[in-house]
Amino acid sequence: MSLFQHPVRIYWEDTDAGGIVFYANYLKFFERARTEWLRSLVELGQEQMKQELGAMFVVSETAVRYLSPARLDDLLQVSVEVKEAGRVSMTLFQRAMLNGTVLAEGTIRIGCVSPANLKPVRIPAPILQALQNKSP
Amino acid sequence: MSLFQHPVRIYWEDTDAGGIVFYANYLKFFERARTEWLRSLVELGQEQMKQELGAMFVVSETAVRYLSPARLDDLLQVSVEVKEAGRVSMTLFQRAMLNGTVLAEGTIRIGCVSPANLKPVRIPAPILQALQNKSP
Amino acid sequence: MSLFQHPVRIYWEDTDAGGIVFYANYLKFFERARTEWLRSLVELGQEQMKQELGAMFVVSETAVRYLSPARLDDLLQVSVEVKEAGRVSMTLFQRAMLNGTVLAEGTIRIGCVSPANLKPVRIPAPILQALQNKSP
Amino acid sequence: MSLFQHPVRIYWEDTDAGGIVFYANYLKFFERARTEWLRSLVELGQEQMKQELGAMFVVSETAVRYLSPARLDDLLQVSVEVKEAGRVSMTLFQRAMLNGTVLAEGTIRIGCVSPANLKPVRIPAPILQALQNKSP
Repeated sequence: MSLFQHPVRIYWEDTDAGGIVFYANYLKFFERARTEWLRSLVELGQEQMKQELGAMFVVSETAVRYLSPARLDDLLQVSVEVKEAGRVSMTLFQRAMLNGTVLAEGTIRIGCVSPANLKPVRIPAPILQALQNKSP
Repeated sequence: MSLFQHPVRIYWEDTDAGGIVFYANYLKFFERARTEWLRSLVELGQEQMKQELGAMFVVSETAVRYLSPARLDDLLQVSVEVKEAGRVSMTLFQRAMLNGTVLAEGTIRIGCVSPANLKPVRIPAPILQALQNKSP
Repeated sequence: MSLFQHPVRIYWEDTDAGGIVFYANYLKFFERARTEWLRSLVELGQEQMKQELGAMFVVSETAVRYLSPARLDDLLQVSVEVKEAGRVSMTLFQRAMLNGTVLAEGTIRIGCVSPANLKPVRIPAPILQALQNKSP
Repeated sequence: MSLFQHPVRIYWEDTDAGGIVFYANYLKFFERARTEWLRSLVELGQEQMKQELGAMFVVSETAVRYLSPARLDDLLQVSVEVKEAGRVSMTLFQRAMLNGTVLAEGTIRIGCVSPANLKPVRIPAPILQALQNKSP
């Protein structure tokens, strides 16, 4: 089973006065990769999922280690792996790599909620099925 | 009539690898100042305005000159002045200053729309009245 | 002469509580497109330009109109056109389009400065030459 | 010993299309609070520390739980507590609260590095001393 990877280019907006990528931005890079990964699994956008299926993913927990800095113009590869997939939540392991070096990695826990009241709802069936196929 | 000013402290998140504040962030600083200015005029939050009055401000045009750089830890003062106030839109002049030096300045045009369909609606009466009192 | 375009996907990070893209983010999208456009002209990254050529581009003026909203999952095309190229600055016209509709457009004025003291310096020769070939 | 708290107002820039604060932004709020907390301890800005003392703090690890959503106009209180302070790094516990409810909380691990090469250096003496006075 091949590892899902999404390319992320570093622009001025991503850096800070330390001359490197502002650490909080890795959470954005991870999310971009998750979104494209989800699209690759079920051809479903987040907006469509919200409007048509009444379900929205929200991040409930993040644990990230920032190991090595990225700089302007770097082209990162951001991976997504399912660690655990339940009926209303999932846990993913994600990494941002540059030329084989891990820059940042961590686990992201995500819940599925109703856009109307933010209460937990079941992950839509086609997504859940795809997730479970990807689980270890 | 005194000039409305709102303090904005510069943090790492605001800077880029050039060692200075990322220019796009002045639009955020201007908006923070507008929000506090509006609150000072009518004691009304944006969320409350959206939920209770069915009106939401959207920015339709920005013209900004970036004159001098701000750096980490700087404490800016951001001003708001009404240039023109109509029934469905207004134009403001805003400045970010540091110790008497203008860092960035420009005009921001804002429309009032329905949150439901983003169509123009009249600026809620108490706000419009306060705006017109502030117009030149 | 073909128009340079760069794709920009809309993610959660780009949106706000109005359900649409936060207007200030178009400045980021425009910059991503400019960076890739510059790379396409001279195969030179911004970091490399800063380190090796002692030159850095800074934005000195932006005038943008926000015409139509973008939403989660939209795939924009962002264009770059040279309006004017001088020895220490240039003016570009940029547009963000979605399926043939203009969402935002405007002019961006950019100066070339020394990273050390932020004083104006000449645009590096290979870039200037490429720019002048693209000027109207 | 009183708990350090820093107020953070929620603006449009902080929210996303889910109508709530974008989770990655809590890392920004935590950092603003840490910066003001540090300033309260030693009257030293981050830029000054970088320029004069050749030391810069970088975040090496973050573990955050997002428990309850914040919305436009909310006024959060963000706290900072020292969990552990060593010679080249420290671990802090931080919370974002709204009217007595915890919205997000977690631990942030921070290293002290040289701005020149990003290698670990000792935390400047006046800061280290102040930190150790605050440790449990």
